[in-house]
Order: sequence, then C-alpha cells, then structure tokens
Amino acid sequence: MTQQPLLDFRSDTVTKPDEAMRAAMASAEVADDVLEHDPTMRALEERVAGLLNTEAALWVPSGSMGNLIALFLHLRRGDRFLAAHSSHVLDNELGTAAWIAGGMPYPMDWDAGPGRMSAAAIHDIAGSEPSYHGLNTTLLSLENTHNAAGGTVMPLEAHMQLVAAARECRLRVHLDGARLWNASVALGVAPAELTVGVDTVQVCLSKGLGAPVGSIVAGTEEFVVEARRVRKMLGGGVRQGGILAAAGLVALDRVDDLADDHANAKLLAEGLTELGWSVRTPETNIVLAAVPDLRNAIKMLGRLGIQTGPMSGQVRFVTHRDLSTADVKDALHRIGSAS
Amino acid sequence: MTQQPLLDFRSDTVTKPDEAMRAAMASAEVADDVLEHDPTMRALEERVAGLLNTEAALWVPSGSMGNLIALFLHLRRGDRFLAAHSSHVLDNELGTAAWIAGGMPYPMDWDAGPGRMSAAAIHDIAGSEPSYHGLNTTLLSLENTHNAAGGTVMPLEAHMQLVAAARECRLRVHLDGARLWNASVALGVAPAELTVGVDTVQVCLSKGLGAPVGSIVAGTEEFVVEARRVRKMLGGGVRQGGILAAAGLVALDRVDDLADDHANAKLLAEGLTELGWSVRTPETNIVLAAVPDLRNAIKMLGRLGIQTGPMSGQVRFVTHRDLSTADVKDALHRIGSAS
Amino acid sequence: MTQQPLLDFRSDTVTKPDEAMRAAMASAEVADDVLEHDPTMRALEERVAGLLNTEAALWVPSGSMGNLIALFLHLRRGDRFLAAHSSHVLDNELGTAAWIAGGMPYPMDWDAGPGRMSAAAIHDIAGSEPSYHGLNTTLLSLENTHNAAGGTVMPLEAHMQLVAAARECRLRVHLDGARLWNASVALGVAPAELTVGVDTVQVCLSKGLGAPVGSIVAGTEEFVVEARRVRKMLGGGVRQGGILAAAGLVALDRVDDLADDHANAKLLAEGLTELGWSVRTPETNIVLAAVPDLRNAIKMLGRLGIQTGPMSGQVRFVTHRDLSTADVKDALHRIGSAS
Amino acid sequence: MTQQPLLDFRSDTVTKPDEAMRAAMASAEVADDVLEHDPTMRALEERVAGLLNTEAALWVPSGSMGNLIALFLHLRRGDRFLAAHSSHVLDNELGTAAWIAGGMPYPMDWDAGPGRMSAAAIHDIAGSEPSYHGLNTTLLSLENTHNAAGGTVMPLEAHMQLVAAARECRLRVHLDGARLWNASVALGVAPAELTVGVDTVQVCLSKGLGAPVGSIVAGTEEFVVEARRVRKMLGGGVRQGGILAAAGLVALDRVDDLADDHANAKLLAEGLTELGWSVRTPETNIVLAAVPDLRNAIKMLGRLGIQTGPMSGQVRFVTHRDLSTADVKDALHRIGSAS
Repeated sequence: MTQQPLLDFRSDTVTKPDEAMRAAMASAEVADDVLEHDPTMRALEERVAGLLNTEAALWVPSGSMGNLIALFLHLRRGDRFLAAHSSHVLDNELGTAAWIAGGMPYPMDWDAGPGRMSAAAIHDIAGSEPSYHGLNTTLLSLENTHNAAGGTVMPLEAHMQLVAAARECRLRVHLDGARLWNASVALGVAPAELTVGVDTVQVCLSKGLGAPVGSIVAGTEEFVVEARRVRKMLGGGVRQGGILAAAGLVALDRVDDLADDHANAKLLAEGLTELGWSVRTPETNIVLAAVPDLRNAIKMLGRLGIQTGPMSGQVRFVTHRDLSTADVKDALHRIGSAS
Repeated sequence: MTQQPLLDFRSDTVTKPDEAMRAAMASAEVADDVLEHDPTMRALEERVAGLLNTEAALWVPSGSMGNLIALFLHLRRGDRFLAAHSSHVLDNELGTAAWIAGGMPYPMDWDAGPGRMSAAAIHDIAGSEPSYHGLNTTLLSLENTHNAAGGTVMPLEAHMQLVAAARECRLRVHLDGARLWNASVALGVAPAELTVGVDTVQVCLSKGLGAPVGSIVAGTEEFVVEARRVRKMLGGGVRQGGILAAAGLVALDRVDDLADDHANAKLLAEGLTELGWSVRTPETNIVLAAVPDLRNAIKMLGRLGIQTGPMSGQVRFVTHRDLSTADVKDALHRIGSAS
Repeated sequence: MTQQPLLDFRSDTVTKPDEAMRAAMASAEVADDVLEHDPTMRALEERVAGLLNTEAALWVPSGSMGNLIALFLHLRRGDRFLAAHSSHVLDNELGTAAWIAGGMPYPMDWDAGPGRMSAAAIHDIAGSEPSYHGLNTTLLSLENTHNAAGGTVMPLEAHMQLVAAARECRLRVHLDGARLWNASVALGVAPAELTVGVDTVQVCLSKGLGAPVGSIVAGTEEFVVEARRVRKMLGGGVRQGGILAAAGLVALDRVDDLADDHANAKLLAEGLTELGWSVRTPETNIVLAAVPDLRNAIKMLGRLGIQTGPMSGQVRFVTHRDLSTADVKDALHRIGSAS
Repeated sequence: MTQQPLLDFRSDTVTKPDEAMRAAMASAEVADDVLEHDPTMRALEERVAGLLNTEAALWVPSGSMGNLIALFLHLRRGDRFLAAHSSHVLDNELGTAAWIAGGMPYPMDWDAGPGRMSAAAIHDIAGSEPSYHGLNTTLLSLENTHNAAGGTVMPLEAHMQLVAAARECRLRVHLDGARLWNASVALGVAPAELTVGVDTVQVCLSKGLGAPVGSIVAGTEEFVVEARRVRKMLGGGVRQGGILAAAGLVALDRVDDLADDHANAKLLAEGLTELGWSVRTPETNIVLAAVPDLRNAIKMLGRLGIQTGPMSGQVRFVTHRDLSTADVKDALHRIGSAS
C-alpha cells in the first residue's frame, strides 16, 4: 500500500513562503528597527495603515502580541471588557488579556448570530453609568472573521450597529482581524470598510496570506507610538525585521487569492454533506463539522492522511493556499472511500 | 408630616455592633498580630476552623480580600477558573481575580438552578486533558448562598456533585461563603457539611452576624501559612486586631438568629406578592423583586424611607438583625399605602 | 529565680490601646463605610487631612496598603521610581511596589545622610529627557523618619531640596510618613510643614500613637476618590470602621507624648554607650546598636527578657508609650548585670 | 565637500545579514513552529543547547524576551532577585522584570570589578534564612559580557565563585549572555564553560554574530517546555520561524570572527587614547569613553559621521562585523582631524 500525501487542514497558519516570497526576503533592504526604523518594515506598516485607513501601524511577531498590546493600552488594571464568548482573546491567548493587560473579561452570548453579540446586549451590560463600587466596562473586542464560530463574517450593518452601541456606552473598540482579509474578500468590500469606528485593529500576515511570520496592529499615531514601546516590553522588538516585512509585502498582493480558499471550503462542505456529515455552509475558509465522537473523528481522518483539529466541539477544516481544489477533492475521496 | 424612620434594606453589611459586642471589643485581650499572634485573633481563627472543619483559618479585613488571597494562591498566572456568572468574584471585586490573582475567568451558565452550574457543564469545559497550547482550567469557585441569584442555597447534593466533578477534572475548589451561615441555617445543617470537599472557604463576620469588620479565609495549615504572607502583601495584616476578633467571637454566637432574618424575608416576599409585586420566594435573607423600571422603583422606595439597591436587574431587599419583623411590616404598609 | 517581666523593644507597633481608647471605640458612632461613609471615619480622615494640609485623606488597614495604593496610582506599569535604599517600600512590603504597583525600583545611595539621597543624585538619575527606549522615572518615594536608617529625621531644608529636585525632573513625590509624627515632634514643627510639595503621604496611627489598627493615606480630592477604589480592590474597604477610627482620633491627641519616647531612646543609647555598646545617638525613638554577632546579641537580650529585632545588620530597640523610663532603666540594668 | 560615509558604532545590533545568510534564509526548510516544530528551528535550538551544554533551548524574537521568560519562570510574585546595578534586566527592559515577571530587583554594587558583585555580597544579602515577614531572595541574574560596564568579561574563577555563593544561598542563577560569544572568544574557552552552574542562559544571535532577528533561551528540558508556553503568552511564538533560524545557524559559524571586533575595539581605544581621550582598555567589542560633556561629544561625533550613543554616562563605541579595521582607522582619522 502506497503512502498517501498528508493533506494539512489544521490551520491556514501552516502555509509556507513560496519562491517569490523567499526571493523578496533574500533581497530586502534592512536596518535596525529598534534603534531606528527598518525601511522595509516602514513600507509594510505604511501600506497596511493605508489599507485599513488608520493613521499608523506597527509590525508584531504574532497576532496574539498585537491583540495583547491593544488590550494593554486600552485597559486600566481592573477594567472590564466585552467579547463574544470563545473569542481568540478569551480562549486562545493563555489568559494574557487578564493577567498582563489587566482586564476582567465579560464573555457575551452569540445572540445576534455565530460569533456576534447584539447591540442591545452591549447596552444591557455597559449602558448604565459606571458605578463607583463596581466594574467599569471600557472596551469592546470584536473578531472578524470569527474563528471559533467557523470563520463567520460580521455583516457591515452589524459591525456599524455594534460600533455605535460601543460609542453610546463610552467603550473603546478593538478589532481582532487576524482573518479580516477573508471577511473583506467574502463581503467584496475593502478592508477599510470593516474598520470603520474601531480604535485599533490587528491583522495577520501569516495565515491565509502566507507570510512566514508577522501581524500588524494599527490605530492612531499616538497609539502606535505607545504600542512600539509595549512591543519592546514584551520582547517583540526585532532588529533587521525587514526580512520578514518583505514577505508581508508580498503577502498583501495575494489577498484576492483568498477567494480560492473560500471556494475550496464550500466545495469541501458540500462534499462532506453529500457524504452525510453535518456541516454548516462556510462563509470563508473554515469548515466546522459536527460529529458524534470528536476525538475519534479526528483520529480517523488522521489515518486517512487528513490533518484537522478540534474547534468549538467540532472538527475544524481550514482551507488555504497550500491546499488546491484537487487536494480538497482528494480528501473527499479518501473520506468517501473509508465510509 | 412627620418624617418616617429610614428602613435600610440595602445590605446586611449595614448591621451595627450592639452593646454586648462593643463591650467584648472594649475588653479584648490583644497583641501585635503581625509580629506574633494576637490571642483573640487566634481564638477566633481556631473557632472558625473548627466550625468549618478546616485545618486552619485566617482573619482578613474583608471578604473580597479573603477571596483574592485564595484565588491568588490557587492560580498560576494565566490559569482559567470557573464560576457561576454574576458571582461576587467576577462582578463585585473590581477585576482583581484577573489582574492580581492572574486568572482568566470563565463565567458559567446557571444551568442547574439559580447561581449554580451543573456537574456536566464542569466536565464539558474542563473534562478533557489540558492542551499544551490552550488555557489550563485549574479552579472552581463556588458561592453559597449566591448573592446575585437572590441568596439562593446550594443543596447539599448539588454541592457534592460539583465538588466531585471538580475533582474528576483535577480542579481545586474555593467556596465564597460570605453568607455560608445563612445557607447552614436554611438547610439546618452544620457549616462543616457545606465545606466538604473544598480546598478553601471564605466566610464573613460582618454581614448577617453583625460584626463591624472582618472575614475569615480557611483551608489547610499550609494554605494559611501562605495566606498570612499574601495578606501582608495586600496590606491586610493588622496589629492589635483582637479588638475586631472579639466582635467576631460574639458574632459567631448569633448564627441561629439568622432564622429570624429568613422569616422576615419570607414575610416581606409574601407581602410584596400580595401587593402585586413579582417576587420569588426567598431561600434566605435576600428578596429580589422584578420591576418594570428598576431605577424608578428604587427611587420610589427611597421616597418612602425604604432603602434598597439594584441586583441582577431587580430590586434587592436584604433582611438583617437591625430590621425587626415590625420594620418589615412597616415597609409593607408604606408600600401598600403608596400604591 | 523570679521571672523578670518582658520588655518589648521590638517595635512601636506593639503598643496596646488603653482604657480611654477602648472606651472611645466602644461608644463610636458607626455606619457602613463601603456603602456610604462612616461618620467617625469621616471625622478622622478630615482631621488628618487638616493636620497634613492635604485636600483629603483615606483610612487604610495598614501603612503597607497606604503606600501600595499611592504607588499604584502614581506609577504606570514599567515606570521607574526612586527611593533611598532599604526604604520600607523596597524591603518591607514583600515586593508589591514591583508586582502590584508595577514599578521598577531604583534604590539610591544615602549620599546626603542616613536614609537620604541628595538632590544632585536625583538629577543624575532622572534629570535628562526620558528616552523612548528606556525607563521613565516618574516618582520619588521619601520616608520620614527613615526606619532602616535608625529613625532618622529628614531636615526641613533637605526635604525642600529633594522635593524641588523631583519637580525639576518631573517626578511625583510620595512620602511614607509612617512615623511622620515622630519627625514632627523631633523637629518641633507641625506635620504639615513636612508634607510641603509632596503629592501623597501616608501616616500611621498604630505605631507610636498607639491605635490598634490603621493608617491614613492623603492627597488631593481626586487622588482620594481613586484611592478609595483601589482600597476596595485590595480588600481594604471595611464596614463599620468607625470603631477603629475612634481609636485613631484618640491617638491623634497623643502626638506630643512621642517626646517621651524620644527621651527614653536617648537614655537607652547613652546607657548602652556607657556599657560599651556601639550606638549612634538616636534622633527619635529608634536605637540601632552595632554588634559583632547580631543573631547572638538578640538571643542574649532575649534571655534577659529584652525583646529586640534585627535592622540594617544591627540590633534595633524601639521605644514607645508602653515602655516607661523605668523600663528603659531596667533594661540597662539587666544588660549591665549580664556583662 | 564630499559627504563621508556613516560609520555606525551605535551597537552590534545594526549588523545586517550578508549574502550567504540571506541565501540560507531563502532556502530554509520550514514548518509551523506553534502547531508542531519547525525543522530548522529545531536544528538551531539543538545546536545551541549543545554549545551551551544545556538539556534544551528555545528560540525567541529578542534577548529581552529570553530574559523575561527566564525571570518569569524563576520568580514567584514578590520574590527578590539580585543583579549587578545597571544590568540589562534592570535598566533596559522597561521594567518587565518587576511588573511582568513579578520580581523585586536588588541592584548590587560592582564591588568585585566592573559589572560584578562579589560572592561575599551575595552572602550578605541572601545568606540568612528567609524571613517569614520579609522578602525571599530566590534568584541571581548575571550578565556576561556586561554591557553597561563596557563589555567586560566575567573571569571563569569569578563566575564559579558567584555560582557557588548563589547555591549556598539557595538561589537560582540566570545568565544574560546576550554577548556570551564575545566572552567566550575573549577568554579563549568554549561557551559551555561559561554556563557551568547556571539554571538558564540567554544568548543573542543578532548582535555580533549578525543574524537579523533572534535569541535563544536555554535550560533543562522541563524549563524549555514551560518557556515555550510563556513565549506564546508574550506573543513570541512564530509560525515558519525556520527562515530566521536559518540565519541563526549561519551566525553560529561566525563566532570566531568576533576576535576581529575585539581587535578593532583595542585599536580604537588606543587611537582615542593617543588623541587624548579618557578610555579604558576594552575587554571585548565595547569602548567606553569618558567625556566632559556627553551630549555634545555624541553630537560632535555625529557631525563627523561617526554614530555612537550614551552608556553609563560615557560615549559608547561598539565594534562589529559591519565595521572593518579601515573603518576604525577612518573614524580615528576624522576625530584626529577635527580636534
């Protein structure tokens, strides 16, 4: 029996730099980005600020650090912040929103759709005058697309309502846009339309876009000046980071390619449904499949050479640029044959 | 028009020391409890440890500090802990469970009754092996009686199930028993029956029992040695604390009096119901009344000389030793006359 | 052989409330100081604010909590603060200035006298523009009298120079005045003269003044509003605190008595010197004696019924209101007889 | 007048990757180092662990993060740690040793030479039994070479004495070896000889060795398992980090080249001395020059196209692989001509 090639649906973070991206890295102009400003870093940061329509932007080694810096700067120790339950800042950043940023999280029900709270719920929890004796709620943290909900997209209207509610309740707004590019492609709007009304936003270069390392956190000039300092605190200031920024610049040319990942996700979902799986139609590049026995399902897929992982009690398949349509069909074929 | 006396239903924390308690304070034997051990402090701590069936106990200036010390010692920075939503450690301690103790809170639905999660829910969230990349859940924090749920009592069987589930998931258990005395009286069992299986427990002397200042946090000898150090860190080590401990010793003689508060709460609830209010039958000394307009209802009661406060979106009335049955009847009369 | 009475020179914190103070506590008017404002608390806080010439003041259970609240509110996470080496905030508060308040301490040499840095040294370390990449120094923490230096008094002129230097370097100033009353008596000036130019000050009621529990932290109205919140965070908000405040009010009547402690300290130092001990003339109520073998010296004194402790590598004797001149003579007699 | 080329003596962090290093990065084998283990990362970590004679090693984006992770894992909140005054962990990491790691720093005098404390001083401060009421000292943090002292090398014998003293005082030992390679070359011993007796060590790949980004923190297997988790907390986990690890592997081939930097530093120091500057003979690649007016001296050098910076109140020149002997002579010539 011949060994089948591994099909890695675990995450879009597994994407590897291709030759063009490697060539860009190899020839990048660099300088010490702690002492001064690496020119390629600066070019990347300015380009992303333009795309997101923020005053300024800052490269960080990971999306987790970008979110942490934003939360740290928005929150005073003891402030409460709101986020949809199972958000990345709550469940996937090892508690740093609490013990480093200093915030008391308030996870909110998805009462307005998968991964989304309603504007009314924000008013309920944060709408009254802050009590002298009680917690002050000062921040709303959004996530678009929402990972744990299955890569769901925040509709533009919902975004505007939530941002408006936050303003009425005197909350700042941070947007975890690790996969904001996917939301932009799915909605067919520019990324800048998805950042309207937010104070800070984090976007990732190393997921669907395929850069090896790096995210961007963006906001006002003043925010970025402070964020650069907090980045150094956390140990995220790097020297000749232009090597990595060069990959980021190439990655930004590839946003439109995400449409292929979305199409592949749909193809996968439809195929799984035909095979009798219980799958919601994906909005972007994440497919969640409800199975009776999660651990066994992932193991079974693994034996077929299909790598996946658990998410929200379901099997998560993530499509990405290193998985072709043929790979998706291959996966479906393997699953179908094994049934 | 004669001014009616104020009837203070805001909290059982407003209880004032009576003559006997003041006399005990005035004659208390004292010593420097930081340098050595104040003898009256020691007597109080040993008596409470006996009542709670723990190895040792430690006086603290407030229930908030007792809970904070326990959480600090149970949690490593970044650990997740479980608590029923709206628990005191989540909503009423200014976020210290997160930014000082270092924990990432996971508020749980009340799927097993008011103020209570089910054992199954604990298994769902904490039952699987801790992931290397994900949060480790290490603590369950219970609250009995549960304030925000309206002074509800944890049934003994439910307590045992939750503690067992916690053990099966390798969680430590802290019990916020600020009003554990009320639970004990309501259930007709000794307090020690309510601490079975917990690692640490906090009980309050200054609520229904009427001491002016002080709570106790209790656990193993080893815990109390460490807790004494954390108390000093937080600035809660006091010198001649025997003055306050003497009041605590008197307070402990008065646990049975809480039955009067419970009877008065029932009387109040029945009266309010007769007057058309929407009130759940109280299990202890807290009555929550659902009203159409919370702020106005509290104001209206205030104009009648009846002091209350908001809790869980309802009007909270708390009965206590400084409110007699006649006072409750007077309050009902005032409300009835104003309707 | 008859057992000699213990003579407790370990600290002025061992002082016990006398009958008058106990009577004041027993009859104190009280209310819930968390929900509203206990009237006796308010009277105490207003009186101390007047004595220190600050806008407002706040009772706290310990001097450590008072210092911690002030540092927490002055420092942003990562700010550097200056303090004379061996200051209480550095060595005796279990590191909370660092891990809770968030400050990076910079211990300064005593280049201007025992327990004191020079104005020039402040300029050296904090005089230049804050670097974007480096630490920002934002606070000077003074201590008067300085415990580890042997209860030394900050001369008025030195105080003014240090405060001026701090201002020129854009530093805030906190004064740990746990024994500020002693400095006031030693210098023969009002306490308010010793707080000129400081932002916040902490004074203790439970050391030489003899109250059982409590300190005061004082500053602007705005500071005290925030400090009350941080006190609650740390678990230092108490209910019927008027019991303790009543003792504090009596204690304030006794500031002048500290002159007796100072005279007794001088008597002790002279006696020890005559007996061949190496002792610096005390400025207030603390006597440090240099000995060849610290541990043995303290043990030997203990065998004579004279309780002392180590401080700065020397034996520390503290005189206080529960040690009379006769007690000091008795101690000297015991030591002389044992030689 | 022709513009002279800039000579950048600010830091060895300004070194840029050359063609060979860029080629290695461009062809590096990579994988997702958060989900699994990037193969090039693993190769680099294993090679450094071998060089340092530790069980395991972990790549981090910066030396600051490496030090922070080590301190975080060694210290409980409130523990005290010892370090020579002006050490990088005290002065150049924005206070994170205090507010994130949770330690109370104790800066020690350089009583045994530049950048070094004596073993006796360690015994003095940490030699006695930890007091229940006082700070526990639990860690010694060394730095070799010592930056602020002017790149001074810890003699092997001194290292062994300090490590032994730490053990006798039950202290753990962390070694900030950002420039340990320079110490190794200067002493003519293997790096592993400089890590004898330490628990953890951090070494930098992006200073004299010329990699664009990255440091390594090393210790036991158990330490590295925990460190990987803390790295993720801080946001330092990266995806296809093999790109950067490939540069690190090339950098390690270049340790011997540091001898050239040391020779250039000597040449510079001698030349400056001849020109009448007050310069200590450098032990490695850092030259500190005492000048009457620091700010003006740095400005004057800047006008000559010689970039330097301030360090310990002196002008710091750092030699590195992007400055040739001819560059050093050019710098001396410019300075000589301008005098």
